[in-house]
Amino acid sequence: MKIIHTIQELRDWRRETGSVAFVPTMGNLHEGHLALVREAAKRADQVVVSIFVNRLQFGQGEDFDHYPRTLEQDAAKLAGEGVAVLFAPSEQELYPNVAQQYNVEPPNLQNELCGAFRPGHFRGVATVVAKLFNIVEPDYACFGKKDYQQLVILQGMAADLNFRVEIVPVDIGRAADGLALSSRNQYLSEAERKQAPQLYRELQAVARAVENGNRDYAALEQQAAANLKQAGWQVDYVEIRHAGNLQVAHVGDSELVVLAAARLGNTRLIDNIEIRL
Amino acid sequence: MKIIHTIQELRDWRRETGSVAFVPTMGNLHEGHLALVREAAKRADQVVVSIFVNRLQFGQGEDFDHYPRTLEQDAAKLAGEGVAVLFAPSEQELYPNVAQQYNVEPPNLQNELCGAFRPGHFRGVATVVAKLFNIVEPDYACFGKKDYQQLVILQGMAADLNFRVEIVPVDIGRAADGLALSSRNQYLSEAERKQAPQLYRELQAVARAVENGNRDYAALEQQAAANLKQAGWQVDYVEIRHAGNLQVAHVGDSELVVLAAARLGNTRLIDNIEIRL
Repeated sequence: MKIIHTIQELRDWRRETGSVAFVPTMGNLHEGHLALVREAAKRADQVVVSIFVNRLQFGQGEDFDHYPRTLEQDAAKLAGEGVAVLFAPSEQELYPNVAQQYNVEPPNLQNELCGAFRPGHFRGVATVVAKLFNIVEPDYACFGKKDYQQLVILQGMAADLNFRVEIVPVDIGRAADGLALSSRNQYLSEAERKQAPQLYRELQAVARAVENGNRDYAALEQQAAANLKQAGWQVDYVEIRHAGNLQVAHVGDSELVVLAAARLGNTRLIDNIEIRL
Repeated sequence: MKIIHTIQELRDWRRETGSVAFVPTMGNLHEGHLALVREAAKRADQVVVSIFVNRLQFGQGEDFDHYPRTLEQDAAKLAGEGVAVLFAPSEQELYPNVAQQYNVEPPNLQNELCGAFRPGHFRGVATVVAKLFNIVEPDYACFGKKDYQQLVILQGMAADLNFRVEIVPVDIGRAADGLALSSRNQYLSEAERKQAPQLYRELQAVARAVENGNRDYAALEQQAAANLKQAGWQVDYVEIRHAGNLQVAHVGDSELVVLAAARLGNTRLIDNIEIRL
C-alpha cells in the first residue's frame, strides 16, 4: 500500500490507474470503516482511502482538536485489506489559503436534523468531499448509512453538480448489542457504553410500530424521545422522514427512515433504521 | 465534428479521448470565441466547445429569454475550426430538477464590481462551470479576459475546489476601432455602435495616466466615469483593482487592472485593461 500525502503525487498515480473506488474517512478506523473498504474492493480495480480530519465540518465547541488521530494504526488496518493508496494530506495541502473561499452550498436540508445542531457542518462535509472527488476522481465512493443525512446530501451533491462518481451506500455496522459502530463510542464511560444500545432499541420500537400500522408519527417520535430522556439522554431529535430525500414523512410514504441523535454525557451518538412498508 | 446533446454520450466519448481543452460558451459565437477555440487547439489533442444559455446566471429583468440562440450558425463556425465535439445540452439535461439545489458559492468578490449589479450572477456562473467541468473533465479550459471578474472567480474556484483543469486566460478580441467583441454589441443601434469604443478609450486614458505615475486612483476612476456620463452613458463602475485577485488596488501594487461597466441605451458593455508597472 502506498501512503501519499500530496495532491500531485495522488494525481500522478491516478493517471496510471484503472477504475477506483474511494472511501473518504477522518481516520481512527473501526470495523464500520473496514466494511466500506470491503464494499469498495468489490466495485473497482483499486481502492483509495483518505484520512483527513476536516476542520471545516467541525463547529465551535466541537471536538476538532481532540479528534483521535491514529494514522499508524489506521495504515496497518488498511494494508491488511488490500487498499492500494492511503491518501493522507496535511491541512496545508488541502487548505493552502487557510480559509476555504469557494464552498459547495447544500440546500436547506443542511439546516435540519443534525444540521440544526451543527451549523455549517454539512457545507463543510460537501465542500471537502467535492475537493476529494476532484483530486481522487473515483468511479465509486462508499459512504456508511450511519451518517444518513450526510449520505443523502452527498448523493444530492454528486447528482446536482454532475460528479461522474457513483455513490455507494453501505449498511450500518453494529456491535453485538446493536450499538452502531462509531469513532465516538470510545468516549463513552463503561456505564454509558452499557446504556448506549438503548438508542437503537428505541429506533427499533418506532420501526416496529410503523411496520405494524401505526401512522401517528409525531406521537411515536415523542414517545421515543421521552423514553431516552427518562433514561438520562439529552435528545437532539427523533424523527421519521421520507427515505432517499429526507423530506418530512407523509402518511402514505412507503420508504421511510427513523433517525435519532442524542447525547450520553458529552458524547453525541446518532443512529437510524430504514423502513420499507 | 460531433454534436452531442446528452451527458452520457459526452462521458462515453470522453472516456476514449486523450487530452481535452474546453471552451464553455453561451453560443452566438463571434471572433472572440473563435480566438478561445484556437488557443484551446494549441493545448490539447481535442477541443470541446459547449453552448448552453445558463438561466442560473441571468438575473430578474436580464435578457435570458431573448438571448440569441443560433446553434446552426455556431456549429458551422466551430466545424471550420477543427472542434472535435460541440456539447449542446438541453435545460432538462443540465437542470433535470428545474431548480439547482447544490451551488458553488464564491467568496464576497461575487458581490463586487459586476456582481453588485447582477446579484447571483457569479454563483450561477461558478455552478454551471463546475457542472460542465465534471461532465467534460477537461485538461484545459479557456476563458476570455473580457469577462475578467468571471475569469478570476473561476480561477479561484478551480484552485480552491481542486479541479484538475488548468484555466487558460485569453486576451480580449477587439474590433478595429477598439470595441471589445461581445454578443451584446449586436444590440447597439448604429449611433451607439459608433459611440461604444469610447469605453475602451476612457480605460486607455486611465491606464496611461497610471503608467505615467498618477496614483490618485479614485480621481482617475471618477474622471473616466464623468466623461462617460457626459457622453450619455449610464455608468455602473470604473475601478482600478489589483490584477489576479481583484482586491482593491493599493499604491505600490505593480499588477493592476482597470475595469468598467456602463450602459448605452439598454445595452450593458464591459471592458478592462491590465496594467503592469
